[in-house]
Amino acid sequence: MKFSIERAVLVKAVAQAQSVVERRNTIPILANVLIEATPDGVSFRATDLDIEVVDKAPAQVERPGATTVSAVMLNEIARKLPDGSLVNITTDDAAGRLSVQAGRSNFSLATLPREDFPVMASTEYGANFSAKASVLRRLFDKSKFAISTEETRYYLNGVYMHVAQTEDGPALRCVATDGHRLARIDAPLPAGAEDMPGVIVPRKTVAELRKLLDDDDADIAVSVSETKVRFATPTITLTSKVIDGTFPDYSRVIPANNIRKLEVDATDFARAVDRVSTVSSERSRAVKLALDADRLILSVNAPDAGAADEELIVAYADDPLEIGFNAKYLQEIASQVDRDNAVFMFNGSGDAALIREGNDQSAVYVVMPMRV
Amino acid sequence: MKFSIERAVLVKAVAQAQSVVERRNTIPILANVLIEATPDGVSFRATDLDIEVVDKAPAQVERPGATTVSAVMLNEIARKLPDGSLVNITTDDAAGRLSVQAGRSNFSLATLPREDFPVMASTEYGANFSAKASVLRRLFDKSKFAISTEETRYYLNGVYMHVAQTEDGPALRCVATDGHRLARIDAPLPAGAEDMPGVIVPRKTVAELRKLLDDDDADIAVSVSETKVRFATPTITLTSKVIDGTFPDYSRVIPANNIRKLEVDATDFARAVDRVSTVSSERSRAVKLALDADRLILSVNAPDAGAADEELIVAYADDPLEIGFNAKYLQEIASQVDRDNAVFMFNGSGDAALIREGNDQSAVYVVMPMRV
Repeated sequence: MKFSIERAVLVKAVAQAQSVVERRNTIPILANVLIEATPDGVSFRATDLDIEVVDKAPAQVERPGATTVSAVMLNEIARKLPDGSLVNITTDDAAGRLSVQAGRSNFSLATLPREDFPVMASTEYGANFSAKASVLRRLFDKSKFAISTEETRYYLNGVYMHVAQTEDGPALRCVATDGHRLARIDAPLPAGAEDMPGVIVPRKTVAELRKLLDDDDADIAVSVSETKVRFATPTITLTSKVIDGTFPDYSRVIPANNIRKLEVDATDFARAVDRVSTVSSERSRAVKLALDADRLILSVNAPDAGAADEELIVAYADDPLEIGFNAKYLQEIASQVDRDNAVFMFNGSGDAALIREGNDQSAVYVVMPMRV
Repeated sequence: MKFSIERAVLVKAVAQAQSVVERRNTIPILANVLIEATPDGVSFRATDLDIEVVDKAPAQVERPGATTVSAVMLNEIARKLPDGSLVNITTDDAAGRLSVQAGRSNFSLATLPREDFPVMASTEYGANFSAKASVLRRLFDKSKFAISTEETRYYLNGVYMHVAQTEDGPALRCVATDGHRLARIDAPLPAGAEDMPGVIVPRKTVAELRKLLDDDDADIAVSVSETKVRFATPTITLTSKVIDGTFPDYSRVIPANNIRKLEVDATDFARAVDRVSTVSSERSRAVKLALDADRLILSVNAPDAGAADEELIVAYADDPLEIGFNAKYLQEIASQVDRDNAVFMFNGSGDAALIREGNDQSAVYVVMPMRV
């Protein structure tokens, strides 16, 4: 194998691939990236056996071939080479090394045979559709904060992407929950997604996917089967196993009959929660919301450290209510609200609250109360 | 106690004080800041029993007094209050609380009695002088990287500040070493410093001092005794115990007879060292320097991972030499060199190397070789 590639192109392709590589590997070849050069260009492939990313890059290929080298080391070398340099990459088959040369710098890297690299088995995808990067970004960005980190509830360790029926017609829906709060985000269903099976996209896949979605207008090709999901741009393909479990029936926890309505500026609200929670200890930061006619008093009482309260002018016309929440959960939800006003729908002080962005029904959050 | 203070003033004063506070305290009051209001203004005092910082700030004092509250909490509250707000601070002596109020936010913080706060005993300072912030910054910034972190060699856990005689006359000198490398930085001796005892300024004090030195032209009042050192701006006073130990006679380890001279661009050199060391494992990153007529080849050989080399055009007219160094030590020294060219003076491959900034003798570095 022999090819030349621009340093900036190499940096981008290898960075994307190596981020999938787990830092601590018991299987040595999983620390490596598979480099394959064909007359059309070069591809960089990395995997942790659950996720595989393949990044294609343009290059001057003189002699096709393939090998694997340490992903972290190749990434670091590429980063450290001078801007604008042309990088010459050649296999030295006799020595079992890969030579990387640019300017007056020469590197000779240990390789492992390409045959040992685990390439993910191909799958029949039951649904193939295309979605704008901005649409997928919204679906996952607004839901991922609620993903559970409890390993015993593995079926909550991801975002449940599925087809849902809504008042506005069929939707592509992402839901995440950890049992304490829930996010449910909808987008119009893309053509071709009608028969998509519901899949739980793992947390790490959601994080890797995010890197493909920076360009608002990019079209992302999405393929879904019962066991795998694939997201592809023209140059990058991210394939991931999905979580083998059943996502719980979340619709039951979304309150339908909460009638007490609070409207509040989302930023003011998040800041006030942040301020009053300063006096509380890290673990159980409970903040109390006391509602009365057009007035919200947020308060925290931590007997050892002190107390804090803050008043906000809000829109509230229902019966007075006192209800407590975990301060972190409230802040995380409030920071998801893109519009000025967050709408809270309450029932009693022991019931879950529902939060919306204005009158928009396409993003809905639920948070369980805490005793205060 | 009752006073009003601008939020920005409060943030600055408390931030400086609380950074001295250790995060994990067995003595509760050491987590607190002592607030003292007098008709002239307010002071914020914090200590870890080795370092004390006092920050004076202007305030509208209605009722003088004093109390102590959690430094971290007061700092966080001040930061989170809206920009531009006026903060009203009042003691509630009956409840033993401190009230902090701004806009619609109210905080009531637990206090501990001012009498319990350990104020550092005053000292007779044997030397008092004034130095520009930029001068002190250079002395400490250029030496601190070499401070030892080995607790058993406690007398190396700081910067040795003392008076030295040089070819250019008496100097204020800072030296730090960890036994593997050494930095020796000189500045003209300020008037009044002639009789200063040599003191070892602890690592943490060096870090705290750095925050007083941002304004180049500020005059810093320095006071030194056998046991303490004090640095003061008009508003902030930093007092610190010095390390009770004897700094070793460093002059013996500074090579005087190294005659092989290498001149190299400091930035190119640091970058090349960084690149070739990529292939080596973290712990013993040895880089080999091979010198020949006007040519330097840097190389690293890590049998498991690979090898790397890079050639630099340099000025070198002596006999060929091969010598190895810890890559991190070389990079740290090269990054101290402000001028374009770093000058290395070598003897044999088993001897320490001396590094200067061009022909400047006021900053000298020594690094021990490694077998490669």
